[in-house]
Amino acid sequence: MSSSFGKLFRVSTYGESHCPGVGVVVDGCLPGMSLTEPDIQCQLDRRRPGQSALSTDRQESDRVAIQSGTERGLTLGTPISLFVPNKDQRPGDYKSMADVPRPSHADFTYQSKYGIRASSGGGRASARETIGRVCAGAIAEKMLKTALGINIVAWVSQVGQIKAPETEGLNLTRAMVDTSMIRCPDTDTAKAMEALVLKAKEEKDSIGGVVSCVCTNVPAGLGEPVFDKLEALLAHAMLSIPATKGFEIGSGFAGAQMRGSVHNDPFVVKDGRLGTTTNFSGGIQGGISNGEPIMFRVAFKPPATIGLAQETVDFQGRQATLAAKGRHDPCVAARAVPIVESMAALVLADVMLQQQARLAGMALMNQTQL
Amino acid sequence: MSSSFGKLFRVSTYGESHCPGVGVVVDGCLPGMSLTEPDIQCQLDRRRPGQSALSTDRQESDRVAIQSGTERGLTLGTPISLFVPNKDQRPGDYKSMADVPRPSHADFTYQSKYGIRASSGGGRASARETIGRVCAGAIAEKMLKTALGINIVAWVSQVGQIKAPETEGLNLTRAMVDTSMIRCPDTDTAKAMEALVLKAKEEKDSIGGVVSCVCTNVPAGLGEPVFDKLEALLAHAMLSIPATKGFEIGSGFAGAQMRGSVHNDPFVVKDGRLGTTTNFSGGIQGGISNGEPIMFRVAFKPPATIGLAQETVDFQGRQATLAAKGRHDPCVAARAVPIVESMAALVLADVMLQQQARLAGMALMNQTQL
Amino acid sequence: MSSSFGKLFRVSTYGESHCPGVGVVVDGCLPGMSLTEPDIQCQLDRRRPGQSALSTDRQESDRVAIQSGTERGLTLGTPISLFVPNKDQRPGDYKSMADVPRPSHADFTYQSKYGIRASSGGGRASARETIGRVCAGAIAEKMLKTALGINIVAWVSQVGQIKAPETEGLNLTRAMVDTSMIRCPDTDTAKAMEALVLKAKEEKDSIGGVVSCVCTNVPAGLGEPVFDKLEALLAHAMLSIPATKGFEIGSGFAGAQMRGSVHNDPFVVKDGRLGTTTNFSGGIQGGISNGEPIMFRVAFKPPATIGLAQETVDFQGRQATLAAKGRHDPCVAARAVPIVESMAALVLADVMLQQQARLAGMALMNQTQL
Amino acid sequence: MSSSFGKLFRVSTYGESHCPGVGVVVDGCLPGMSLTEPDIQCQLDRRRPGQSALSTDRQESDRVAIQSGTERGLTLGTPISLFVPNKDQRPGDYKSMADVPRPSHADFTYQSKYGIRASSGGGRASARETIGRVCAGAIAEKMLKTALGINIVAWVSQVGQIKAPETEGLNLTRAMVDTSMIRCPDTDTAKAMEALVLKAKEEKDSIGGVVSCVCTNVPAGLGEPVFDKLEALLAHAMLSIPATKGFEIGSGFAGAQMRGSVHNDPFVVKDGRLGTTTNFSGGIQGGISNGEPIMFRVAFKPPATIGLAQETVDFQGRQATLAAKGRHDPCVAARAVPIVESMAALVLADVMLQQQARLAGMALMNQTQL
Repeated sequence: MSSSFGKLFRVSTYGESHCPGVGVVVDGCLPGMSLTEPDIQCQLDRRRPGQSALSTDRQESDRVAIQSGTERGLTLGTPISLFVPNKDQRPGDYKSMADVPRPSHADFTYQSKYGIRASSGGGRASARETIGRVCAGAIAEKMLKTALGINIVAWVSQVGQIKAPETEGLNLTRAMVDTSMIRCPDTDTAKAMEALVLKAKEEKDSIGGVVSCVCTNVPAGLGEPVFDKLEALLAHAMLSIPATKGFEIGSGFAGAQMRGSVHNDPFVVKDGRLGTTTNFSGGIQGGISNGEPIMFRVAFKPPATIGLAQETVDFQGRQATLAAKGRHDPCVAARAVPIVESMAALVLADVMLQQQARLAGMALMNQTQL
Repeated sequence: MSSSFGKLFRVSTYGESHCPGVGVVVDGCLPGMSLTEPDIQCQLDRRRPGQSALSTDRQESDRVAIQSGTERGLTLGTPISLFVPNKDQRPGDYKSMADVPRPSHADFTYQSKYGIRASSGGGRASARETIGRVCAGAIAEKMLKTALGINIVAWVSQVGQIKAPETEGLNLTRAMVDTSMIRCPDTDTAKAMEALVLKAKEEKDSIGGVVSCVCTNVPAGLGEPVFDKLEALLAHAMLSIPATKGFEIGSGFAGAQMRGSVHNDPFVVKDGRLGTTTNFSGGIQGGISNGEPIMFRVAFKPPATIGLAQETVDFQGRQATLAAKGRHDPCVAARAVPIVESMAALVLADVMLQQQARLAGMALMNQTQL
Repeated sequence: MSSSFGKLFRVSTYGESHCPGVGVVVDGCLPGMSLTEPDIQCQLDRRRPGQSALSTDRQESDRVAIQSGTERGLTLGTPISLFVPNKDQRPGDYKSMADVPRPSHADFTYQSKYGIRASSGGGRASARETIGRVCAGAIAEKMLKTALGINIVAWVSQVGQIKAPETEGLNLTRAMVDTSMIRCPDTDTAKAMEALVLKAKEEKDSIGGVVSCVCTNVPAGLGEPVFDKLEALLAHAMLSIPATKGFEIGSGFAGAQMRGSVHNDPFVVKDGRLGTTTNFSGGIQGGISNGEPIMFRVAFKPPATIGLAQETVDFQGRQATLAAKGRHDPCVAARAVPIVESMAALVLADVMLQQQARLAGMALMNQTQL
Repeated sequence: MSSSFGKLFRVSTYGESHCPGVGVVVDGCLPGMSLTEPDIQCQLDRRRPGQSALSTDRQESDRVAIQSGTERGLTLGTPISLFVPNKDQRPGDYKSMADVPRPSHADFTYQSKYGIRASSGGGRASARETIGRVCAGAIAEKMLKTALGINIVAWVSQVGQIKAPETEGLNLTRAMVDTSMIRCPDTDTAKAMEALVLKAKEEKDSIGGVVSCVCTNVPAGLGEPVFDKLEALLAHAMLSIPATKGFEIGSGFAGAQMRGSVHNDPFVVKDGRLGTTTNFSGGIQGGISNGEPIMFRVAFKPPATIGLAQETVDFQGRQATLAAKGRHDPCVAARAVPIVESMAALVLADVMLQQQARLAGMALMNQTQL
């Protein structure tokens, strides 16, 4: 019962992988913002499969249509409905899987939970569900950019055991990220990563990866303690993306190995405001943004659907061999980049609005109290 | 505006570190469950400081009182209010910090967000805020145990660079965990960890750690896709605990290095139900529990408040040296164990109730449709 | 930011009166329920204008399409997206109103709130917004009927000063209600009401009315005290329908004139359960259904858009005369009947699921505690 | 599971009538507002019983204590916990009622819903539950007054069949309302009402009443269409008060008898802004405040607990006679006045914050877009 996310900037997605289409309703966008389909399509294009040899061969020419909430290119402040028809469906590809739950996929758990499940593809567990997130995220991003100048850039920092050189990513742009198919801005690493992915693909196998993300120009004060700390909302958002296994903010798991005297971020004066010399905090302290770049990393497992034969059992417990015939991604990291950016934008848009309510209310109160 | 957590099992905490007390209101506990203070006090005792040489010397003899929601030792199904008075307050310890925001603490961000902050201690960012979580978690745990037989056990699996041998923890009990001060069930590792913590303490420094947690007897079907996937709720819950920097489920970040052919968990028949031979999924697939143990890890940074002198600036940007005089934990991992267990219980209680609504509704529908 | 309603059975509507279409996403429907378009279309047909001489002449042949959430005629337990294209748009009709906020309509308040508004029709304040409610309500009704046998029937009990004879409506069916255009089941009253509406129409005026509603077979125990008392949720639901001015449950405002000795509903044994001899409570006591029929009434004002010339001012404060040229309803009561039923169904579906969670949880607990 | 109310200004109440105490947690109050107990106690004193011969003889000297969320008399922006101990308990008074559900009270429905209930008093259905609402409402009122200058005044406009002369109440103050015990500002009517209540009391009976309320200085733009229309939230809030049976906004049920040409509120220029000459809309159009006074009425039934003997049945269905021995109110209207004001304040505080988020966000966007 939880296909919605957010409190003041609230999105509700719908759609299975093989029904008429997928979509999202965005409730809470500020009124008066210019918004037309191209604002959204650009991120959707980065998400779709078939962009390169690295992803599935499926060609999904996903086109988004705005169904409500704007007029003459401006948002009305009312719910924005976005719809993307499903095309290039080949339900036949999935027939052999009807009786055999795919290992590490959601067939078994959806059947356990609902007593029924979509007969082909992954239903709501399909990667197509993320289309709605990316559409909504593009709107959130435009709002954040216009209102506060916030930038969000994600990239692939690891594939298998190949890691990109450490970078804070402060000067990265999406154009730089997109120079390689694998979306790693370090050229040499990108080539090695791509070779690794292609090797996995040839071997009908799949491989995991890590996406890093940085959000700059985030003002201090965003995040709602104590249960909606900014890092908690980001963790929630990221772990709701299919195939994710972990989330780190700032120093992350490496921070568990450190001493406080090293890990603490001392304050200094920066551009007339208080900043920190290091950023092990990842831009968040006590659940609230501190004005430094927000930096986090998300781990993606190797896709569960592989062409290699797997020994498993069917729903009745009978031994079965499964070898997926559909067209599937050998590595989701590159296509996950815009999804991670979108989920970050959804979180930031929501906490921005909540903090704006406080700031505006405080301003009203101060007028009277002075 | 977000001191509440959960949807059907909803908790609301309140209280700063140095006000009359801290507490929690638990709304949504099932009626008719036996509940008295000792059910709660046991976990609260595991959380409080001053238990051993490893933690702060502050003696907080926190005693919980049930203020509402039960009668004759049974829950009424109405909100359960729990209150723990604040004692042993020494606001004086914090005076020197009034003008200097402690590095990597929440002084600066609370001030930025609210334009005001509690003058001593950490206010809502204080570790005392977690008292409410532990109290509420004890109630959730009792409900989960009674209704479904669910067990939740957490332990310290890493301090600094010292890691305990890998274990699934399936047979661990809290008694076994509590045999060492550091709450690591492996005796040799525990000793090494404790030595490391004491060394950090002597050096007026602090050190990070990792808490692992396993939840057993969780039935298949819990978790609410797509945004409230079970791992997403757990990540949210864990990253809302103070001082956390990362969350991993199942294979976690290591999964990013793996191939799908290895990472996939093949199905087999176990005890008459479908189970998996490996558990890289960590007990969750597609956001829904699959009946296998739920396994996750949480990274804690080294506590920010240390006795060592730190160079920083005050709120006005003037150079300042800070050396905390209060009594503070050199490592939070051991005391975080019951907090991690409690947050896991809050998540599971909530998704259990949501799935019970579905199962009961489906049963009603089937009676008619047959 | 609030185009959603409900907690476990949650609906989100979208769409302005003159955009591509209106729709609704229904999240939380039980899985495995048979559902196809005709289940929904029947109520939608009762809502649409142009059904009779009593309503607007606009012909809106609204056809609903299921976009997601079902397969082979069964619900999947995932979000059900429903879309109804907008047709027969005549934006030109509204041009003269662009600069003059229509008295007692939402032009002025939307402009004040959002700084922008849909240029024609009522935008989100249009009656077309209720299409999504009716579609979602039809699904809720089917679920309530299948799971619990609940029946919901509403009718027009008053138009202007003409009131239908008092009835509890226990044996009323929708077919009986629909025998008259005005949807009053008492034939003589219906004729008088219809004459009154036609007279108002001829005079380019409009007239108010009251819709009564009864819900039977509602089991005892539904409603969530203290803030989500069943009557509070119903009041919220009903007052969210455009043009409503009042809500009464059971004795209503007449109850304010009564003595307790008369108003109290004594208990008796009925069909092996405790029932009451009278029903001034309207089927709800302490915010919880008591097993008796739930009875309430909703007041509708005369539609604001009338053909008669009205003296008013434009947005700049200049004197203006307004005479609506569009095709508008002289009385909304008849078309409001399925909307009232739908909103009642949305409320009951939500509290049913919440109580099912409790009942199922209690059953699990009792197994262990015994 | 619903003892909470509000979205950004969120209150959670707890406490049964005969447990240690009742209380409320207020999450979302703006930081930096001066707040001490006297700000709250004044309204609490107006709510408590034993104020006059008209109410129960129970003396409840309810004293509120702030447990968290303020420091040095200023709000911190963190949850404010308020506690009021229960005193003067006489559980013995209720013993005879243990087996006999009181007609039109909540004994039967709570037992049906939860399978258990508080053994004496009304548990959560007791009037003492409203203490938390009044405490929270006092905080909301102070915030509304400070930030926007909003005034909220309620009064008793009807007792039994005695109605006060119609008034918009625009110049009423609480002091004027409190000049009579019955809280009707019209002296002659007040005397007649008081006589009627005393007569009912003497006859061991009870009587209903109506409370009217006006909110002035509410700016245009508050309320969140489409499901959280301002009148819908007010209706929800009012019908969640114990013993309420109806809600009317503006013209209310009388509006159902009117023609549009009369009912429409024409716009004029007032104090440099657009206002209306009449106010049948009750200050709200399309779910959004229009700047005119918000006017509504709430119907209260005669209290269910009366001294007169009532024929009914016990939980086992055996005939029983019930005559309440406790001390109970013969009419709740006078004491309901501060409760109605408080619930109105909770609604307005919440929608004010939501609109402030929008206004502040729009201001940020405009800076960039210009």
